[in-house]
Amino acid sequence: MRIQRPTFQRPEPPAPEGAATRVAITLGDPNGIGPEVVLKSLHDPSLVPSMTPVLVGSAHVLRRHADVLGFSDLDIHVVDEVLDEVPHGDVALLDVAEEEAPPVSFGSITPEGGRLSMRAVERAVDECIEGTVDAMATAPISKSAINQAGYDVPGHTEFIAERTESPKPTMMMVAGGLRVGLVTGHVSLADVPARVTEEAILEKLRVIDASLRSDFAIDDPTIAVLGLNPHTGEEGAFGHEEEKIISPALDAAEQEGFRVEGPLAADGFFAAQLDSDFDAVLAMYHDQGLVPFKALAFDHGVNFTAGLPIVRTSPDHGTAHGIAGKGMALPGSMRSALELAVAVARHRNQRTETPA
Amino acid sequence: MRIQRPTFQRPEPPAPEGAATRVAITLGDPNGIGPEVVLKSLHDPSLVPSMTPVLVGSAHVLRRHADVLGFSDLDIHVVDEVLDEVPHGDVALLDVAEEEAPPVSFGSITPEGGRLSMRAVERAVDECIEGTVDAMATAPISKSAINQAGYDVPGHTEFIAERTESPKPTMMMVAGGLRVGLVTGHVSLADVPARVTEEAILEKLRVIDASLRSDFAIDDPTIAVLGLNPHTGEEGAFGHEEEKIISPALDAAEQEGFRVEGPLAADGFFAAQLDSDFDAVLAMYHDQGLVPFKALAFDHGVNFTAGLPIVRTSPDHGTAHGIAGKGMALPGSMRSALELAVAVARHRNQRTETPA
Repeated sequence: MRIQRPTFQRPEPPAPEGAATRVAITLGDPNGIGPEVVLKSLHDPSLVPSMTPVLVGSAHVLRRHADVLGFSDLDIHVVDEVLDEVPHGDVALLDVAEEEAPPVSFGSITPEGGRLSMRAVERAVDECIEGTVDAMATAPISKSAINQAGYDVPGHTEFIAERTESPKPTMMMVAGGLRVGLVTGHVSLADVPARVTEEAILEKLRVIDASLRSDFAIDDPTIAVLGLNPHTGEEGAFGHEEEKIISPALDAAEQEGFRVEGPLAADGFFAAQLDSDFDAVLAMYHDQGLVPFKALAFDHGVNFTAGLPIVRTSPDHGTAHGIAGKGMALPGSMRSALELAVAVARHRNQRTETPA
Repeated sequence: MRIQRPTFQRPEPPAPEGAATRVAITLGDPNGIGPEVVLKSLHDPSLVPSMTPVLVGSAHVLRRHADVLGFSDLDIHVVDEVLDEVPHGDVALLDVAEEEAPPVSFGSITPEGGRLSMRAVERAVDECIEGTVDAMATAPISKSAINQAGYDVPGHTEFIAERTESPKPTMMMVAGGLRVGLVTGHVSLADVPARVTEEAILEKLRVIDASLRSDFAIDDPTIAVLGLNPHTGEEGAFGHEEEKIISPALDAAEQEGFRVEGPLAADGFFAAQLDSDFDAVLAMYHDQGLVPFKALAFDHGVNFTAGLPIVRTSPDHGTAHGIAGKGMALPGSMRSALELAVAVARHRNQRTETPA
């Protein structure tokens, strides 16, 4: 099949005013494409004025990936603390590996890889909590590898939520002005209808509304809410969840002061209303939101975790073990994750600096 | 939200070799945008060499819409039979209205409108069956209006299937090389899992494979098949339909000689594999297939009914009563429906003309 890609308008990089924003960047699984997309992103000079990157992982692993890419000019400066000075032009790295030369085996899923990638995440979260960095961006980890290493979590989001004692982390997929949240996530399609409850919808709307205000600096956001059934059930012809659950949830949300609109038919929404004034869209389930998101965002999609006390972003792709160590990985999504981390950190800082 | 639209590559219009293809074009609901998008499509001179249009509806209704659009140069030539000669430059129209000046009330849903629109569909189907036209393209009708007029069908597809005694009509959404079929359609999301059966998948694969060969002239088509659950259930972590139903269906399809691949994760498919060599994709349910289709096809999507003895296409939008009579409707989808009707009719003719 041949179809021309959407030419994606990237968000403007944040203006380089004031001090550069410090972003902890975890390298992800050493055997996947994480270190590669981080290196490629940092090679882009337009990011430099706005961001001070602090890599978290293993210097040895990073050099292995840099060698593959031919980045011979990379000067990694291993620091003990985030705030340590590094020579001009060098990239600071917190080495959290337990050994000096952790094994790198492109494409392999290993407990060592899982352990190293999670030690980096732990350190980055701690630095965020302590305030030594303003945000963190996480390159992809392997769920299988971290499970082999004894981490009993499905992924970054749940782990970071637990470590920051955040009960309601909410994934928002962001690509420029397109922001997509989900009521249900990694559950089977058969389990979706029972989990689409008035309270679940309301909770997501609260988190998304708060995030649009504090993280995206949108003063009076409007959120579009999709229906569960095709054509929102066509007035009950196929499905009643719209009238029985979603509409009451929207009424309750309006009573809480939120600006919401829906339920809207998903196919019409992504076809016709993308250029409209909605600031975010809440989909009822994974594929309803992520399929059009990925189709439209191509390689610039960012996974942002709303509802955390810290700022965390990540690319919307996985470890891609199949192409690891080959120099083929596209850095667009990682780069966008860094830009968004900087932008959200600045919005939050401005908010706390400005008297209400 | 702001996101730049995909710049869609339209299919090449069919080469104007041999006789022009006769296409019956039903005008749809008189109070919707149907007549408008037909008129705008026919104003495009590039369609002329390849197609002889025969409108089916009411001359009075068409003139009302032409007046709104300022198409004062439109010469409608009312014919009694499709094969009647019309003066050069005129547009032939079979007037199927029961009265000379049927009421037109832009934006209204009326039984008269429903009745008129269905009389046109009946006539066009009959002309296709008799072979006086090579194909039909249907402007949108209003389900409410046709129900008010006593037609107890949900839409064109079911009506035409019944009138042509076709037990397995299959909607295929087509936009250039992107072709999307569905296992289940207008059913509630809660009813989807029970209807995704091995036999239902196989049946759709048979119809789509046959259509790709005969209607799209693809000799050895490959069909991608999506999973039901997010990430195809991640090896049973959320949902088992992939291993229990979809994979066995694909095995059976391969044994019947079809080239199929799957189950594939829907979000990854529409993000990454659009440029691949699949000739069609089979989605498990409405929003899984139509949401990304409409996001990518924008205003060039065509609804093609595979599995009929006649050739029938339609635009992928509805009557849009809210903007009827305002000159605002975009004709891209109707125009693409006409192009596809011509292309499919030619492919079928070539097939019957060529010895096997």
